[in-house]
Amino acid sequence: MRTVIRNGHIVTQNRSREIINGDILVEDGRIIGIGEVRGSADREIDATGDIIIPGLVNTHSHVSMSILKGQIDDLPFDRFLDKSFGIDARRTDRDILAGARQGCMEMLLSGTTTFVDLYYSQDVIARAVEETGIRGILGWAVLDPQYTTQSGTPLDNAKRFHRSHGGRSRVIPALGLQGVYVCSTETFLGAKEYALDNDLLLTFHLSETRKEVVDCKKKEGRRPADYLADIGFLNDHCLAAHSAWLTIAEIRQLARSGTKVSTCPVSNMKLATGGVAPLPEMFQNGVAASIGTDGSTTNNCLDMFREMRTLSLLQKANRWDPTVLPAQQVLDLATIGGARAVRMEGRIGSIEIGKQADLVIIDGRSANLRPMRPESIISNLVYSACGSDVRTVLCDGDIVVEDHRMVTVDEDKVLADGEAAARDLLG
Amino acid sequence: MRTVIRNGHIVTQNRSREIINGDILVEDGRIIGIGEVRGSADREIDATGDIIIPGLVNTHSHVSMSILKGQIDDLPFDRFLDKSFGIDARRTDRDILAGARQGCMEMLLSGTTTFVDLYYSQDVIARAVEETGIRGILGWAVLDPQYTTQSGTPLDNAKRFHRSHGGRSRVIPALGLQGVYVCSTETFLGAKEYALDNDLLLTFHLSETRKEVVDCKKKEGRRPADYLADIGFLNDHCLAAHSAWLTIAEIRQLARSGTKVSTCPVSNMKLATGGVAPLPEMFQNGVAASIGTDGSTTNNCLDMFREMRTLSLLQKANRWDPTVLPAQQVLDLATIGGARAVRMEGRIGSIEIGKQADLVIIDGRSANLRPMRPESIISNLVYSACGSDVRTVLCDGDIVVEDHRMVTVDEDKVLADGEAAARDLLG
Repeated sequence: MRTVIRNGHIVTQNRSREIINGDILVEDGRIIGIGEVRGSADREIDATGDIIIPGLVNTHSHVSMSILKGQIDDLPFDRFLDKSFGIDARRTDRDILAGARQGCMEMLLSGTTTFVDLYYSQDVIARAVEETGIRGILGWAVLDPQYTTQSGTPLDNAKRFHRSHGGRSRVIPALGLQGVYVCSTETFLGAKEYALDNDLLLTFHLSETRKEVVDCKKKEGRRPADYLADIGFLNDHCLAAHSAWLTIAEIRQLARSGTKVSTCPVSNMKLATGGVAPLPEMFQNGVAASIGTDGSTTNNCLDMFREMRTLSLLQKANRWDPTVLPAQQVLDLATIGGARAVRMEGRIGSIEIGKQADLVIIDGRSANLRPMRPESIISNLVYSACGSDVRTVLCDGDIVVEDHRMVTVDEDKVLADGEAAARDLLG
Repeated sequence: MRTVIRNGHIVTQNRSREIINGDILVEDGRIIGIGEVRGSADREIDATGDIIIPGLVNTHSHVSMSILKGQIDDLPFDRFLDKSFGIDARRTDRDILAGARQGCMEMLLSGTTTFVDLYYSQDVIARAVEETGIRGILGWAVLDPQYTTQSGTPLDNAKRFHRSHGGRSRVIPALGLQGVYVCSTETFLGAKEYALDNDLLLTFHLSETRKEVVDCKKKEGRRPADYLADIGFLNDHCLAAHSAWLTIAEIRQLARSGTKVSTCPVSNMKLATGGVAPLPEMFQNGVAASIGTDGSTTNNCLDMFREMRTLSLLQKANRWDPTVLPAQQVLDLATIGGARAVRMEGRIGSIEIGKQADLVIIDGRSANLRPMRPESIISNLVYSACGSDVRTVLCDGDIVVEDHRMVTVDEDKVLADGEAAARDLLG
């Protein structure tokens, strides 16, 4: 099966960040030609006047919460947690599946082709991933048994999920640690051992709130990242979400260990956790960063375009410096940076020969992108584009969104099922 | 001409903030029925499953800059100003018209039906307003003659614009003062006198940057709002944009004089001006606030939905308090608050009998708005909706956007003209 996409502005995100006007040839899920493609293919997509970018990588989410958007807003943090945990404890597999389907759909429609999830019941979420055609790196939530509603031991459940779901193309099992507040040293190290033995991503919440930092200092005598470094947990398979309340010393611990970061600006702002991830210092110290939306109760949409824009605005405002996080750097975090964060830099995150064909075609007729000028394409992607400007999406060479509509699932049915699940769950 | 919109979730924004499921009847540009409308009309619009809100009011913009988006980003503030003023000085009427057409189109497509503009050449912008069918409150830029590229005296030009363009239905002349840094006491008071004599809105930049405050203290011995109060300028026709660097004493001056505020969160964040408009204190002291996008070089889109979301996030993050600026309050600022800010509360800003039929129908099929539950409609409008979710827009009862497409102008031609103008202007 050969697909050719014709005549777009190709934002390659290759090493020299070239923008090439031309075609992309895809065969068996991979990019095999960029530039002028002669001859015909089995399938031709006209992208004249459109922009083509690599599929976006959302490195932190709780996708099945998508049906809870708009339900838990504007509350003090403790009441937010109470309400959130209360709903979670009542959720059935059907609710989780309905939410995951809607969330995967929302991500694909807005140009995300790979996401990292942290939740229990990843076997259910895996179904939504396979049905919708997105790539999911699914971190089964691991925490100490006394804190969870999971039956059995979370780490054993995570291992079972890995054994039953490994080796698939778009469902990639991972381990997801809830955080220092509910994971013992043994839990952290047990998860690490299994992850390294099996080459799995180890994702976890890190220093999202001040309370987490203060409590960790009380309990462990150290700040969270210092503690995780000292116990020998941090390593190059680690992806730390939020990472907002960090000292320079902790940033250096992350850099030394090869730990990557997923910054979640909208979630941090909406929950008003106060911390702003110190991205400039991460860059200075060589920490690889990426962007996550977090779940739909704290965002409330899974649109990486809006996340890019807010990230840049937040970082500039926070430093009183409009040159912080310029557009190209922000786009890097959402593409090649995301690929690096999930240890797939060789396979996704840019439009280059040999990489998986994760391609997002953005509607050049959108006023958000116009005037379309070579020197403003990147700025417009970051500062004025929106997920809804995405026209067509390929994941692994398969068309999953075509002309703004899902190809793989029935959108109206997904939304109606989500509504029914929300009704049963919330009354 | 009778138009009926059937079967929507009507977010009235009336005094009790009712959401009514039903129909809206429009005759001769006004709302004459809400609820169940029996019988037929000349025109029927099916809004089953959709949300209907009052047209949004964008209270600060420089609309003709729309063709400059993506051209002046990520620069230090002084270089931003140099580049911006440099381009402005070269602009022809044709560039201004092309930009204004695109900007008015962007606003209508994303649900804004009334906007306030501050710029010179408002006679040119008025053409774009009339062609696209939006309502423009056009503040001719007034400043001291030695600082301007306008030929003649700016205040005289503004008066001439008012005399030639008064009495039209959707072009509403106003006076726009550039700010304390280029306007003398005489200029302020001359503008005030004319505005009050002719019942015109007086809009101006106020305390956007620290430099403005520091310079004003040096020159006038007082902070900007104190100075404007002391010289007797502030009055109930005033609408102060930005208003970020204010003391409590200045907020009280605004309240006492009846001055309204337009907060511009995205612009302030992108330019990293540091100040965050003290909205909680404005509410406490009775200052009427509203929301503005500012121009496309600092935003870079004119989407009031994204502006609402960012405003709430910024205010929560700034106060470390997730209960600040809850969704309903944010929607109020963009609708009835905007109407109050432009002194049109009796005519626009809510869906009530007798008001102008400025109506925005939002696509209920959008995943951003689903699950659609009565208790989450407002949250979803503010935290997950996007301008592109807007399906159909009526201004004064006229359909200006239908099923996501402009009715009044040829979109492709507007965008192509904008591109041509940008090319000539920028090279």
